Amino acid sequence: MSHNNVEAFFEDVITVKWGPDKKSVDIIDQTLLPGTIKRIQLSTKEEIWEAIKKLRVRGAPAIGVSAAYGLAVLADGIEADSFDPFFAKFKEYKDYLASSRPTAVNLFWALNRMEDCAKKNSGSDIRTLKDTLYQEAQAIRDEDVQISRGIGEIGFKLLENLKKDGKPVGILTHCNAGTLATAKYGTATAPMYIALEHGWKGDDMHVFCDETRPLLQGARLTSFELYKAGITTTVQCDNMASILMKSGKIDIIFTGTDRVARNGDAANKIGTSGLAILARHYGIPMYICAPSSTVDMSTLTGDDIPIEERDPTEVSAMWYSSPMVYEGVDIYNPAFDVTDHTLLSGIITEKGLCTAPFDKAFESQGMK
Amino acid sequence: MSHNNVEAFFEDVITVKWGPDKKSVDIIDQTLLPGTIKRIQLSTKEEIWEAIKKLRVRGAPAIGVSAAYGLAVLADGIEADSFDPFFAKFKEYKDYLASSRPTAVNLFWALNRMEDCAKKNSGSDIRTLKDTLYQEAQAIRDEDVQISRGIGEIGFKLLENLKKDGKPVGILTHCNAGTLATAKYGTATAPMYIALEHGWKGDDMHVFCDETRPLLQGARLTSFELYKAGITTTVQCDNMASILMKSGKIDIIFTGTDRVARNGDAANKIGTSGLAILARHYGIPMYICAPSSTVDMSTLTGDDIPIEERDPTEVSAMWYSSPMVYEGVDIYNPAFDVTDHTLLSGIITEKGLCTAPFDKAFESQGMK
Repeated sequence: MSHNNVEAFFEDVITVKWGPDKKSVDIIDQTLLPGTIKRIQLSTKEEIWEAIKKLRVRGAPAIGVSAAYGLAVLADGIEADSFDPFFAKFKEYKDYLASSRPTAVNLFWALNRMEDCAKKNSGSDIRTLKDTLYQEAQAIRDEDVQISRGIGEIGFKLLENLKKDGKPVGILTHCNAGTLATAKYGTATAPMYIALEHGWKGDDMHVFCDETRPLLQGARLTSFELYKAGITTTVQCDNMASILMKSGKIDIIFTGTDRVARNGDAANKIGTSGLAILARHYGIPMYICAPSSTVDMSTLTGDDIPIEERDPTEVSAMWYSSPMVYEGVDIYNPAFDVTDHTLLSGIITEKGLCTAPFDKAFESQGMK
Repeated sequence: MSHNNVEAFFEDVITVKWGPDKKSVDIIDQTLLPGTIKRIQLSTKEEIWEAIKKLRVRGAPAIGVSAAYGLAVLADGIEADSFDPFFAKFKEYKDYLASSRPTAVNLFWALNRMEDCAKKNSGSDIRTLKDTLYQEAQAIRDEDVQISRGIGEIGFKLLENLKKDGKPVGILTHCNAGTLATAKYGTATAPMYIALEHGWKGDDMHVFCDETRPLLQGARLTSFELYKAGITTTVQCDNMASILMKSGKIDIIFTGTDRVARNGDAANKIGTSGLAILARHYGIPMYICAPSSTVDMSTLTGDDIPIEERDPTEVSAMWYSSPMVYEGVDIYNPAFDVTDHTLLSGIITEKGLCTAPFDKAFESQGMK
């Protein structure tokens, strides 16, 4: 797949982009995937709020970019001649959007950054201020793209080393740490998309996506986006990873992460720690793709990372048309698990490849 | 739970039993589980055939017993004064029932055994012959119960050794090797039910059931039957086994098997090999519960066991009300995997506990 085709893919599938004349935010409605591919333009505050609330856009970086884009669009429509009335309305929009997902840290981070930008430019005329806010939203997006690209370039070098004549490089991934969750390249998927940009063909690799129970992000989202990018892709149930690794089809494993402790222990979607143990058993290298912002140097080890337990109906009922578990039976539904750092071949941040001892590696990348 | 309550449980949930006056076969309709518990009486050849065909009864031993019971009921209704016209009709019924599931080895085995019984007793008067066929069906059932009980008694000793004051013994199991698949105790579940018969209370153990994608036998069937037996039971997704083992909640793992090779390699429901690797990592003992008939001494290692790949729609569509995978994406759906014998603490047959070297242990149990 040529560079042009990769760009065409991103234009088609990218999570969030500007609508025509930057009068709206254009997103792919993830609640309809994978059955229906539909892009929607959000131009009113209600539309933007509802899209975030109803998970039409999901993934921390993607939510942040969507909110920033949305606030820029809304700011552009404010009719005011001076800063104070402008800012009063701006603040009203900002607080409203912030109420869409009260637990989404990245949402507040992006909206606060937009507010800081407005305040810093209170002396500008209103047209200039509006343009500056557009630029700030764009910067939030471009910085995320740069982070993903940085991770992707490093991961791509690992793929290059695994390339063999006539046989695709086999990659296993879990959940969705893909373009759908971020501004462009994803994290775990960044090495794959960057490989396409460097001229790899879609069948130079074969990506196996764990379906990722209970919410099936791997089946519904990751395999969809890789397939649309022309990459050879297979979906399997989570419990098929062992037979896949044994078969010799997997050369390397990439996953994302939600939070990395100082010692390199990494919390990620439930099932990741099991993959790491299987990978060690079969001698397959496993890498966590982590924007440096997810490395939390104040968390000493994975034992200090709380594990969220989620609604049992995600396991027993969601997506299904008939009962999956007998009424009254207890269900365990942890959202994450912690992968022990000793099982990881490396942690890839946009700043470089970290290997054990991870605390030293993080420090050498300037983390404190 | 007292012995009486265990018996009441089996009366309620047991897969197959005689209907009133042995004029029908009484089964629990497994296609309706776990949403609806409904027992149905099969008295015509069409009803028996349909129940096997449509998987209202499933599990190799349970299918065999149902077919034998069914053939005895049908034989009882044959109006004939001498063997030849009786046997002509009997053979017609037998061949008809055999056509219900052409790949179910245990179905043919049970029906052939019934036919052999009829032939051996061709000199009996017809009433005596009919009674003898009832007895043969009963013997097929009772022998399966004895095999499960033998496995259960041995597994129970392992549970006794793990019993601690004030804390339930944590057990992990996968798929359904339970009462629903057999005549009474199941195989992997036999140690649990035998424990109840020996006076354990339902909360002396805590059984964690992998949901077992793609067909969810653990979520739908195993957790249902254990819960109905009063055993503390939890369902989790397959990819949650690692965090469960890490948490210290699992003391021992029991699974069933479809086929054991001479060296102890064991084929079982997809995901079993991954569990064994996790168990080894966390230092948790894992046992395969195997009727001696599943040990195939002519198969030298697990490499010689073919792995069936099943319909991709089991992964992408079954049970679901909306698409789980984008149209066109490749799906991998192996039904089984092979667990390496070096990962097993032991293999429990009705004849005793086998430990490595397994070939010698099998030979000492009289297998050739």
